[in-house]
Amino acid sequence: MSSDVRRRPITTAIISDSSSSSSFSPKSNSDVGNNSNHDFDHPKADRRRTVMHYAYRPCTPAHNRIRESPLSSDAIFKQSHAGLFNLCIVVLVAVNSRLIIENLMKYGLLINANFWFSSRSLRDWPLLMCCLSLPIFPLAAYTVEKFAWTKRVSDSVVITLHIIITTIAILYPVYMILRFDSAVLSGVTLMLFACVNWLKLVSFVHANYDMRLLVNSIDKEKEKSASSSIEYFYDVNFNSLAYFMVAPTLCYQRNYPRTACIRKGWVLRQTIKFIIFTGVMGFIIEQYINPIVRNSRHPLKGDFLYAIERVLKLSVPNLYVWLCMSYCFFHLWLNILAEVLRFGDREFYKDWWNAQTVDEYWRLWNMPVHKWIVRHIYFPCLRSGIPKGGAHLIAFFMSAVFHELCIAVPCHIFKFWAFLGIMLQVPLVMLTDFVQRKFQNSMVGNMMFWCFFCILGQPMSVLLYYHDLMNRKVNTK
Amino acid sequence: MSSDVRRRPITTAIISDSSSSSSFSPKSNSDVGNNSNHDFDHPKADRRRTVMHYAYRPCTPAHNRIRESPLSSDAIFKQSHAGLFNLCIVVLVAVNSRLIIENLMKYGLLINANFWFSSRSLRDWPLLMCCLSLPIFPLAAYTVEKFAWTKRVSDSVVITLHIIITTIAILYPVYMILRFDSAVLSGVTLMLFACVNWLKLVSFVHANYDMRLLVNSIDKEKEKSASSSIEYFYDVNFNSLAYFMVAPTLCYQRNYPRTACIRKGWVLRQTIKFIIFTGVMGFIIEQYINPIVRNSRHPLKGDFLYAIERVLKLSVPNLYVWLCMSYCFFHLWLNILAEVLRFGDREFYKDWWNAQTVDEYWRLWNMPVHKWIVRHIYFPCLRSGIPKGGAHLIAFFMSAVFHELCIAVPCHIFKFWAFLGIMLQVPLVMLTDFVQRKFQNSMVGNMMFWCFFCILGQPMSVLLYYHDLMNRKVNTK
Repeated sequence: MSSDVRRRPITTAIISDSSSSSSFSPKSNSDVGNNSNHDFDHPKADRRRTVMHYAYRPCTPAHNRIRESPLSSDAIFKQSHAGLFNLCIVVLVAVNSRLIIENLMKYGLLINANFWFSSRSLRDWPLLMCCLSLPIFPLAAYTVEKFAWTKRVSDSVVITLHIIITTIAILYPVYMILRFDSAVLSGVTLMLFACVNWLKLVSFVHANYDMRLLVNSIDKEKEKSASSSIEYFYDVNFNSLAYFMVAPTLCYQRNYPRTACIRKGWVLRQTIKFIIFTGVMGFIIEQYINPIVRNSRHPLKGDFLYAIERVLKLSVPNLYVWLCMSYCFFHLWLNILAEVLRFGDREFYKDWWNAQTVDEYWRLWNMPVHKWIVRHIYFPCLRSGIPKGGAHLIAFFMSAVFHELCIAVPCHIFKFWAFLGIMLQVPLVMLTDFVQRKFQNSMVGNMMFWCFFCILGQPMSVLLYYHDLMNRKVNTK
Repeated sequence: MSSDVRRRPITTAIISDSSSSSSFSPKSNSDVGNNSNHDFDHPKADRRRTVMHYAYRPCTPAHNRIRESPLSSDAIFKQSHAGLFNLCIVVLVAVNSRLIIENLMKYGLLINANFWFSSRSLRDWPLLMCCLSLPIFPLAAYTVEKFAWTKRVSDSVVITLHIIITTIAILYPVYMILRFDSAVLSGVTLMLFACVNWLKLVSFVHANYDMRLLVNSIDKEKEKSASSSIEYFYDVNFNSLAYFMVAPTLCYQRNYPRTACIRKGWVLRQTIKFIIFTGVMGFIIEQYINPIVRNSRHPLKGDFLYAIERVLKLSVPNLYVWLCMSYCFFHLWLNILAEVLRFGDREFYKDWWNAQTVDEYWRLWNMPVHKWIVRHIYFPCLRSGIPKGGAHLIAFFMSAVFHELCIAVPCHIFKFWAFLGIMLQVPLVMLTDFVQRKFQNSMVGNMMFWCFFCILGQPMSVLLYYHDLMNRKVNTK
């Protein structure tokens, strides 16, 4: 302990010994002169602070007033918890890194070229033919509409013809898949094309039907005043239909908002991103999801704890694939398509990750289908006198049927898992709406959505379908 | 498709067909009368909205204007990402739940009563005796100070005596632990008591020495004007010392801010919390950390990937134990002690979880030691002419020595891991300070802190000490 401790007037010392917080307050200028007798290179601005520091001598009290701990119940919500969020992210990265290393040590690299280009796919050429023949149906619908607009056939004949065309448009791919016992991936792809085709057809027909109704009603009004220029707006047009069939939308209208030009560099960047993310998706499926699913047992049979463990283990890579898939399809692919076609309205999804209820999620995540359902199911239902709850139920029923079609047909399994999965959304919507009203807290609803949807629902469905598919293969052999 | 679709004036229909966003705008009152011819029970307030909905007929365009996707580079930062934070938490819970189930299936319940009450502990009674005899040293220091204040012995004798007392106060427990080859846990506990005892002794002596200097300087000034009432404030007092030795602080002062009364119910609640969290901590150690550590190899020998996997696997339960430990000791235990002693200043830690640099962390997380170092190391160093960097280095060196003492002595391993661990903080401080200045972003520094500190540093140290301990046991056998 050095003996050249600086001397201070007794008044300051006594004040700083009392229980006030004044011991750190800057001293008077005369004090500054006394204290700064050391050779540190502090600028003038720092001088005041330095003096303050020097005043802190060993006999100055360290505890000057009553203070609460930061985590005591009075003070805890005055704290920032940003660091804890960062901790969550760091722990997540650490846990995932560990699981990646563990997987690598256990299985090595599993990916090989066979996954993407198997000889099996070549056997599925009938499905490719079916896919290429799908444009026949919009052509047929166009022909019928053309007759309808020129009023050569009656309304009831037009409706009957359209019902026949749309029914064949969905049953023909189903028949092809079941007939040729195709691979699951080819089947799903064809069914998705067929469903999109069907939805677009229905939209085209429904919109045109409604336009004709409108034009007829105007005609009746305008018969007195001779004028037919308005009819021009409502004619069916082949170019419009052709554009609609390839455009990233399911709702037919004569003209879409268009962008001025195609940004080629932008398209290239998005395409590169698309290839990278598809690769990542494939890698996660091959490296992480496949081993887990293969090593699992049927989730509804046997040990409950074991089933939960498998579902939870599957949930993490499944979630990542899900997020990659959403990003690849709804953001990258539809944006590329829109850019190439100069399609203006890029709202293919909204911020569904912030959804506070399951209901909100379904209204945010797939805008093309949401807009189609609102336009061609929900409002027509309301107009025909069905109450709101009923219209909701019908919309979910439609969605469930199409989910079942897209999954059950290519898998050749008709156990209605997908159908039940979507119909289960209805009580879930009611439950999360109730929770939302009860807690008035966006966190709770959002967390419930993630839990039900990504942590439990999807991995459960994957396991159910996988095991039924395996059982079916064993049985057929 | 029902045929009773409502009729609208053609003007509205044409407007809504053009590419404007007006199709959802409320219609005029005359329109309302025409459209609401259905029997739904909507109140008057809803009427306007309902009319808007009805206006959405199938031929109304669904796409009205050019819009960006929410994740496109122009729009991505306008989005809220609260949902993704929730997702992180949900995934974290899911991953942890799975690891808990996996551990349970692999090991079953590992905890048993032996962990807490082993027969081994009873063999460590000499350490208990040593712990109980520690108050001898403050008594000796008090006696010496009493003599010093009454000016019966010279300053140099006082200093020599204090150096002897404090040196014995730390060497005596070290000798006892090494002599009796105690269990690690008993040894660590005794060393912590001994270190606290030493720090308090130094603070008491240093503060008194400084007070005497102050009083002497005043005496010289006041010799002309006869007045000795001031000396009263600086006398050494046994009650003050006794209170200081048990109070939750390491900085001696005559009087502390005190609370008015003891909240007995509050103490009871905190005690229950303390017991619960200590139990959780013990459970995590027995159930998760022990199996991982036992199944590990030496982290510096053999496969690098394997070592990383072990360190990452250990990091998660280790982090939870660390958080539990901080909460139990710095929040619960010190608060209980403070409440019982009516000690007012409860700032035992600040919000270290938000620390943006390693430097900040060390200034926030352990306030009693931080205050002690500032008062009895850092400022005395500055006053004696050492530059700031040197004073920092000396403070870290002191800290490193005491960490090494508390860990190496009870483990009987003198490989300086703990010492190096603390001294490594110095370059880390510089690195994170640099990162902080470079990025100006609180996130980066905070994440680096968590990574280095909790994900890599601590589990690494645990593994190093465990394996050296095991090797030592094998060698001694």
